[in-house]
Order: sequence, then C-alpha cells, then structure tokens
Amino acid sequence: MAIKNAFYAQSGGVTAVINASAAGVLETARQHSDEIGNVYAGRNGIIGALTEDLIDTNADSAASIAALRYTPSGAFGSCRYKLKSLEQNRREYERLIEVFKAHNIGYFFYNGGGDSADTCLKVSQIADTLGYPIQAIHVPKTVDNDLPITDCCPGFGSVAKYIAVSTREASFDVASMSKTSTKVFILEVMGRHAGWIAAAGGLASSPDCEIPVVILFPEITFDKEKFLAKVNHCVREYGYCSVVVSEGVKGEDGNFLSDQGLRDAFGHAQLGGVAPVVANIIKDGLGLKYHWGVADYLQRAARHIASKADVEQAYAMGKAAVEYALAGHNSVMPTIVRESNTPYRWKVGMAQLANVANVEKMMPADFISEDGFGITPACREYLVPLIEGEDYPPYKDGLPDYVRLKNVAVVKKLDEFKI
Amino acid sequence: MAIKNAFYAQSGGVTAVINASAAGVLETARQHSDEIGNVYAGRNGIIGALTEDLIDTNADSAASIAALRYTPSGAFGSCRYKLKSLEQNRREYERLIEVFKAHNIGYFFYNGGGDSADTCLKVSQIADTLGYPIQAIHVPKTVDNDLPITDCCPGFGSVAKYIAVSTREASFDVASMSKTSTKVFILEVMGRHAGWIAAAGGLASSPDCEIPVVILFPEITFDKEKFLAKVNHCVREYGYCSVVVSEGVKGEDGNFLSDQGLRDAFGHAQLGGVAPVVANIIKDGLGLKYHWGVADYLQRAARHIASKADVEQAYAMGKAAVEYALAGHNSVMPTIVRESNTPYRWKVGMAQLANVANVEKMMPADFISEDGFGITPACREYLVPLIEGEDYPPYKDGLPDYVRLKNVAVVKKLDEFKI
Repeated sequence: MAIKNAFYAQSGGVTAVINASAAGVLETARQHSDEIGNVYAGRNGIIGALTEDLIDTNADSAASIAALRYTPSGAFGSCRYKLKSLEQNRREYERLIEVFKAHNIGYFFYNGGGDSADTCLKVSQIADTLGYPIQAIHVPKTVDNDLPITDCCPGFGSVAKYIAVSTREASFDVASMSKTSTKVFILEVMGRHAGWIAAAGGLASSPDCEIPVVILFPEITFDKEKFLAKVNHCVREYGYCSVVVSEGVKGEDGNFLSDQGLRDAFGHAQLGGVAPVVANIIKDGLGLKYHWGVADYLQRAARHIASKADVEQAYAMGKAAVEYALAGHNSVMPTIVRESNTPYRWKVGMAQLANVANVEKMMPADFISEDGFGITPACREYLVPLIEGEDYPPYKDGLPDYVRLKNVAVVKKLDEFKI
Repeated sequence: MAIKNAFYAQSGGVTAVINASAAGVLETARQHSDEIGNVYAGRNGIIGALTEDLIDTNADSAASIAALRYTPSGAFGSCRYKLKSLEQNRREYERLIEVFKAHNIGYFFYNGGGDSADTCLKVSQIADTLGYPIQAIHVPKTVDNDLPITDCCPGFGSVAKYIAVSTREASFDVASMSKTSTKVFILEVMGRHAGWIAAAGGLASSPDCEIPVVILFPEITFDKEKFLAKVNHCVREYGYCSVVVSEGVKGEDGNFLSDQGLRDAFGHAQLGGVAPVVANIIKDGLGLKYHWGVADYLQRAARHIASKADVEQAYAMGKAAVEYALAGHNSVMPTIVRESNTPYRWKVGMAQLANVANVEKMMPADFISEDGFGITPACREYLVPLIEGEDYPPYKDGLPDYVRLKNVAVVKKLDEFKI
C-alpha cells in the first residue's frame, strides 16, 4: 500500500506565529517521508479541501519552509468557514472524502481556534460515520487564548507582548506630554468575548516601572462614573494615564460600547471603534486632552516583536501534531502544559478534541483586580512567561524579509464543487 | 571666571529617539567638563526655564544617561509652548535671563521641530537684544520631517520604519483573510501637513515583495470616485489591498476628511479619526469587508523597532550641538547631509537658525506617483536609507527595559513666575 499523504490547512483569523506551526508540521512530515507522503495544503483553509484547491508544499524549498517560522499571517490563505453537522450538510463531508480519496490523504491537520476544533472533530469522525480512514489532528491557534485544556494558545503570547510593549511605549509618550498637552492615551485592543488581550496591557506596568494603566475588560459591565473617577484619580496622582479598552466592552444596556448609533451629516449610520467613544466620555466627563489608537490587525500580525516562547510553542504544536498522527492518534489536539513559572517551563500534552470543541475558556475571575480596572498578581504570574524572549525576523533594506511561498496548485482530478 | 553651565530642553511632540539626542548632548558635555559645568534640563521644556524648574542631570549615572539612547519619549518632559516675540512678551525673555544668570547658564540647547527652532532663534538673539551672553543651538527633532536644509529629521526614520513594517505585516494578514473575509485594511498615520509618514507606507511594498498599497496624501485633494476605482482595481488584481491614510487628508471642500460632522444618538458632535471615514466610503462604494487601525502615539513611541540610522543621527545631532557651542557658534542647528544612497553615507552639517525657523519643507511633487496614490522611485531612494538597520533595546521580563531618570530638582533661587 502506498504511504498516505497529509492535508494541512489554516483557519480563522491569522496570527504572527501560525506559520511557525505550519513549519512544524511540514518539517516534521518531511523528516518522516517514509511514513507520510506529500503534504498538501488547503488554499484558504477548508475551502481548499472542498474545492480540491490543493497546494503542493513540496514545490517550496527547505529554506522557504524554514522561513515560515518568522513570517506572520497564513502562508496558504485562511478562511472563515464552519462545516455544518453531518446531518445538515452530508454533501460536504462526502466531497471531503472524494478529495481525500483522490489524493490518497490519510492525515488531516487543521490549524485554528474553537470553531476550527469543531470542524476538525467532525472530520475525525468521518472514519466512523462514513467509513473513510483518516486521522484528524487539531493544531491550536488563537490570539483570543480561549481554547480549553491547553495552558495557553499559540498566537496569544505575541499579541500580548505587542500590546504590553506598545502600551508601555505610548505611556512613556503621554507622560512626557502631560504637563501642557495630552493626559490620557486610549488603546483599543482585540478580544470580543474574553479580556485576555486587554489584560496584557496591564503588563506595561511592572514593579520596577510603574505606569497607571486602566483596563476595560469585556467581562466587566462599563460603569461610566466609576471609570471617570478612576481616570481622574490616576491623572491627579501620576499626571497622566493610559486606558486599554477591549473592543468587546458592553454598557449596562448590554450593547457594545462601540455601538453608539453614530450618524454622519446625512444621517447615515457610521461604524466606529470603541476607542473614540471612550475618548469622548473622557472629554465630556473630565475635560482632559486625549489621544487614541486602534491596534487592529497590527497587533496580531506583529511578527517583528513576537514572543519567543510563543514562536517555540507554535512550532512545537505543529511538530507534535505530526508525531501524534504517526503514533496512531485521531481526534486529538496537542496542548501546552505549564510545569513552572520561574523559570518558565512547559511541555507538550494531549487533549481529546471532544473536550475542546465548542468550549470557551474565560479569564478566571481572580485575574481581574477588585475595582475591575486592572490585573491581579496571579494574572501577571500567568502572563509574564508568555511574552518572554524576543525572536526577531531577518531584515532586508530596513524591512522584515518575510517569505512568500510558491503555492503551486496540485492538478485537479475531480469535477468542480460549489460551496 | 567660573565655567558656564548649560540648559537643555525637549519641545513639542516627543519621538522614539529624542532621548538619543539628549544622550548625545549630556555625554558630550560630560566629556568637556573643563568647558561646560552642569547641564540643567528644563522640566517640561521651556516651561522649566521660565518657572526655574530645572533638573540636575548630574544626579543620574553614566549608565542611566547611556540608557536614554534606547528609551523613547522625552525623559525630562516636553511641552507645547511657543515664546511670543520680544515685543509681545518682553517679560518672558527677561525672566529667562534672570534664570540663566541665577544658574550661570551660558549654553542653551533646544531639542525640537519648527516651532522650537523659532523659540531657539529668539533666545539666541537675547545676547544682542537684551545684552545677555548666551549661545543657543537647536537640536533638530520631528517625526514630521519638515525642517528645511537638513536632509531628514531625527524621529522621522523610526516612524517611517514602524509604518513600513506595520503596513507590510497587516498586508500579509489581510491577504490571508481575503478569500472569505476582509479585503481592505486601512491604516491612519500622522502628518497633518506633509505626507512624509504616509509615504513610508509605500515602502511596505518592495521589488521582491509586491503589495498593493494605496496612499492618501495630505498634499492631494481626496477624490472619492478615483479612490474607489483604485481600491477596486487593486482588489480585482491582487484580491486585497492596504490603504495608508494621512490624518491630514482634505476633501474638495477644503475640510479634513476626518471632520464628518458625526453625531451620537443624542446629537452630540463626535470626534473620530479619518480611518473609519475611509472605511465607510469603501463599504458604501464597493461593499467590501474592511478592517481599520489608527497608529497614533504607537508610531512615534515605537522605540522597539527604531531605525538604526535614525538613532545614530539623533545621537550625532546632540553631540554636534555641544561641539558647535564649544567652537563658539550661536544661533545654528546641526544638520544631516546625505553623501550617498548606496551605501548610505551621511555627515553632520550646520544651518543658520534664521534659515530654519518658520520654514516648512514639503514633500517634493516628484515623490508622489502620477495617479496620486503612491510613491515614486525617487521617493523610495530617499526613504529606504532612513529606515535601514535595527537597534533593539534591552529587554527584561519580556518588556523593553527603558530608563526613568531621577529628575532631581535644582534648588530654586528666584521668586515664583507664573506663565
């Protein structure tokens, strides 16, 4: 029997280190070419599998694959596409099997977050439900850090480092200007459901470099008066303060604070971020001069300031996924197991996908300070190891020399499939 | 006669490298302690001189002063305060002389942009106008890159590098997502009058890493139909595009594009950035999914990704200022003189302050491409050397280990002065 090929795809919002996981998968598979044949990547995630739009990763050199380790974004393209259940869309599963059969695919590696874990779980069950032998392993990735069982999620540490560094730098800036100009800097960060990324703003302040950082968590209902009192206190005490606000903060009415019903001069609804809303609240309530920023994609793409721990874990997850597949596992996900904080030590573990899919890990309540605007020592102890170490990409002409793969298409063998 | 002391102050918006200039001034002055006594820094710029709020820089160790080289923001505090003319406010000049006399100050080093050059020029004329002997030297600094005579301005190169790197990273991100999700990423950057910083977004694309970047310069009146056609073309051609928009872009009515008369649900005027306005134009005009970010202070405080050339030039300007003072000069500013592009070579020159103050250097017209949305090869040739090289700060616990000085106050000798 010919050895089986593997399928690898990237799913959901990309990160600074998802390609490091890809490098882990591809390099490890190449080291076991006696057990795994070709690795085909899905162009734009699972869509590439459904449409038989496969990329021949053999077309790229070992050097290019190694360069994935320091290249942000999804090298093969990602997608936001969730498979329905077998009952709801049997046709898609049958199509996947057709594609897997046509290309002799026996391993399925899916690199994503919570929704993707669910997709991966469904694929892993094809063996039982539709009688096609395949081993599906999920490779964890999400800046939201909300996957269960694993201590942390690849992608999060680098966002956390970016937000902590940026908040410290902007705080130094506003401190310099505060005598005659800006007194409050507001930074909007990602995290619609959980405050993990916002919490990282709290790391900007450390025992030897105290900075007044006020955090607005999505877990805490926004209380305008309490917030204004907090900001006012910081400005009186320190002369300035920084506010790190999660895009997911909600008001007492349960609506997102960013959803302020803004209208332009013609009455058209306008979409804004939450940072300018918070800025206006400060202007109206305290009359303080402010500046605001919105990090958006910059935060999750910032490979130039990635956390070394995060890069190493992302690579390790990809490597472990292949090793687990070769050891005969199906329907599992490699995890990060924390062994100690000081020094930071971790090892690779394993979780059953059935325990991962559709479970969201929230911030523990004891990670948020009593007043609701900061992080606790326990939270700091958890977060600091995740941002430790720098892992700089190579530069050329002043810019990171990120790789672009050839992404050569595999010749199609099947009829077209519309999704 | 006792040797004279020096005064040093930071003015206007701070940068990632203004403290490198401070290090240049302080270290060079310490090397000439036989000619320059103490260096007193103004707390919060010229306000520190007027209110006799002086900082004794001797209180900080050589190691702390050296650490200024890699610490962003203004270590002594900055201010936005422009001296009026001698005729309009003679009292302020007389007060400056009182403070200078009381602390035996014979050298005045002022670290700022165009407005500060004007202040420095006025101080330099005190010798003639009010008979107090002082040598005033301006140390150039501005992210706006708009000082005349000097080839570039310390602070700009690091912002340019940050914007180029961030635009490249976010472009890689949106490219990955574009099949099923975001197709346009919009980044708002500083530069209310000149498009130097926006131009740096064009560097994200290079001959070996082509990226569709559409730039909106403040020099070019916004033309909605032309802009939408350009974005649409890029998305059809590449599948995605990035838009780098200067905060200073104006519409045909002469108003800032950011000034859209937004109202909240209660009819209150809301202040927004230009990025969400451009995002709405794309949504309404093309129906494309977008994301937007606003770099704000992050861009000018980002010492973690500073340009090495910029750091070296900032330091050299501080050093040269002290050397020019010791050589007997007054009313001058050290400049950067470009000698060659490949390899990049530059030397320190000198400009008369009278030729610097109140002169704004705009982008040459031949730096903007014919369609108004990009940079020309000449612009690229000018910009690339300015972002070359990395100069990473040291890290501790995952964060840049920036220094905070003691900022010990010099004992006051005069009565209080209200500004």
